[in-house]
Amino acid sequence: MPLLVWGSVALDSVETPTDKRDNVLGGSAVFFSYAASYFTSANLVADVGDDWPAEHTQLLEKRKVDTRGLNVLSGEKTFRWSGKYLPNMNDRETLEVHLNVLGKYDPVMPEEYRRSRFVFLGNGSPSIQLKVLDQVPEAKLVVADTMDLWINIQRDELLQLFKRIDGLVLNDSEAKLLTGEENLVRAGHAVRALGPKFVVVKKGEHGAMFFGENETYVMPAYPTPDVIDPTGAGDSFAGGMMGYLAEQQKFDPLTLKTALAYGTLVASFTVEDFSLERLKKIERADVERRMQDYRRMLSF
Amino acid sequence: MPLLVWGSVALDSVETPTDKRDNVLGGSAVFFSYAASYFTSANLVADVGDDWPAEHTQLLEKRKVDTRGLNVLSGEKTFRWSGKYLPNMNDRETLEVHLNVLGKYDPVMPEEYRRSRFVFLGNGSPSIQLKVLDQVPEAKLVVADTMDLWINIQRDELLQLFKRIDGLVLNDSEAKLLTGEENLVRAGHAVRALGPKFVVVKKGEHGAMFFGENETYVMPAYPTPDVIDPTGAGDSFAGGMMGYLAEQQKFDPLTLKTALAYGTLVASFTVEDFSLERLKKIERADVERRMQDYRRMLSF
Repeated sequence: MPLLVWGSVALDSVETPTDKRDNVLGGSAVFFSYAASYFTSANLVADVGDDWPAEHTQLLEKRKVDTRGLNVLSGEKTFRWSGKYLPNMNDRETLEVHLNVLGKYDPVMPEEYRRSRFVFLGNGSPSIQLKVLDQVPEAKLVVADTMDLWINIQRDELLQLFKRIDGLVLNDSEAKLLTGEENLVRAGHAVRALGPKFVVVKKGEHGAMFFGENETYVMPAYPTPDVIDPTGAGDSFAGGMMGYLAEQQKFDPLTLKTALAYGTLVASFTVEDFSLERLKKIERADVERRMQDYRRMLSF
Repeated sequence: MPLLVWGSVALDSVETPTDKRDNVLGGSAVFFSYAASYFTSANLVADVGDDWPAEHTQLLEKRKVDTRGLNVLSGEKTFRWSGKYLPNMNDRETLEVHLNVLGKYDPVMPEEYRRSRFVFLGNGSPSIQLKVLDQVPEAKLVVADTMDLWINIQRDELLQLFKRIDGLVLNDSEAKLLTGEENLVRAGHAVRALGPKFVVVKKGEHGAMFFGENETYVMPAYPTPDVIDPTGAGDSFAGGMMGYLAEQQKFDPLTLKTALAYGTLVASFTVEDFSLERLKKIERADVERRMQDYRRMLSF
């Protein structure tokens, strides 16, 4: 079943302690849809400028990403982000942001996307996330991402959004900021009390925590020695998770937990190179091999 | 099978963001032996001064901790540590340290402890850890802890120790310091290359990682909402782990992994109150109940 994703499409410049890349393909919706593509086709809704290289669209199309919702706006420029990772590779500083098209226009949803059942609202202004949500009345599972910026400047809209979504994924620091709770278990439950039926707290290299009505659990990250560039790990995690759920066409607790594991593993590949470089080289079978290893790792 | 532990016995003063305790029972060998006591009896070797309250000895004796190796030195004072936790409850600063008896005397090993098969060398000067090791020629499994201080000032002795032990447990920051590797997976393997047959890297609230000859895995921490005082969590982890191994009288890969899980769970109780307060209130059955929950948490 196709999955709808709205989010950012970006040209990133990334600096790590040992290497750097300029103007590489990035953005939450890109990492999300590419990660989802191992499981199902993803319908992408996002805006780019006329500086957008056509080969990026082709790359997405080669996987099961439907780019009919990718609006190329003439006279505009694509969102650009540049950042630098600290030696621990878990913390980063943003060097430059050029929002350009980002958040400037209301999302334009192709007619054939409006009947989507599985919807992911990538990180962005909650008022725009709400506008996307208004266009998918048949959605059965809606999961959103957010970030500190919106918690700080659009808290009311965010709280309004929380009442209308099934799941929320956010970083550990964002969960603490949102709730004022320093203990992540308490923070996760407190976020859930704001509306989402389930909450996934991403902890970077330490994995993710799940908070549902009846269960709380932790999924450790897959221990890879090759962390080259963590950019997009969180979006790949969400993409793998939602991709698997859309493929299974269900989201009962066991399917959800398995989906979190798939998200974890796709993200573990993403960080092994810049941009989509590592993901471009793997197939579903590679994810499944890592899944076997991951299951073995967690059994005793 | 009894387990030998050498380490510190302390009177701690602990300040958390919301509460504080003065002169409470602490020290690596105390947390270790009490945690081990759910699985097997522990033989404790440590020095204290004549300010040592007799009721602490009784408390240890009430569990299966053999205190014949606890030397009360007259005219001396017990090791004292005071520290303050930051709001995240994972980082702390040491406010005061009075070494007193600590490291002043060579360990005195009661004759009946010298045939120990399972040995834990708590954090302390590696030259003293080596002296303990010299007194247990029949040891089958020797695991040691260490800390940044010894990595910085007794590196040669530490490297000598590494050649003679089976396992090493240390914190994530210590593994990075020791190896210069920022990626924990690489750091763990690099520590193992220094000598220990296996290495356990403790990540506090994020769990622990295991590095063996043929396997690498992660054990997430048990997600407790009630983190009151993390002091002793690492030592309880090691105690639960070694206690289970000594009980099982083996340390094949599966038993080791199960032991890491038990260590994780005992530590999750330790942090739920100051000093040994929480551990005093639980029995093996409570650990087993949490183990059922933990296994369910990790299955999908």
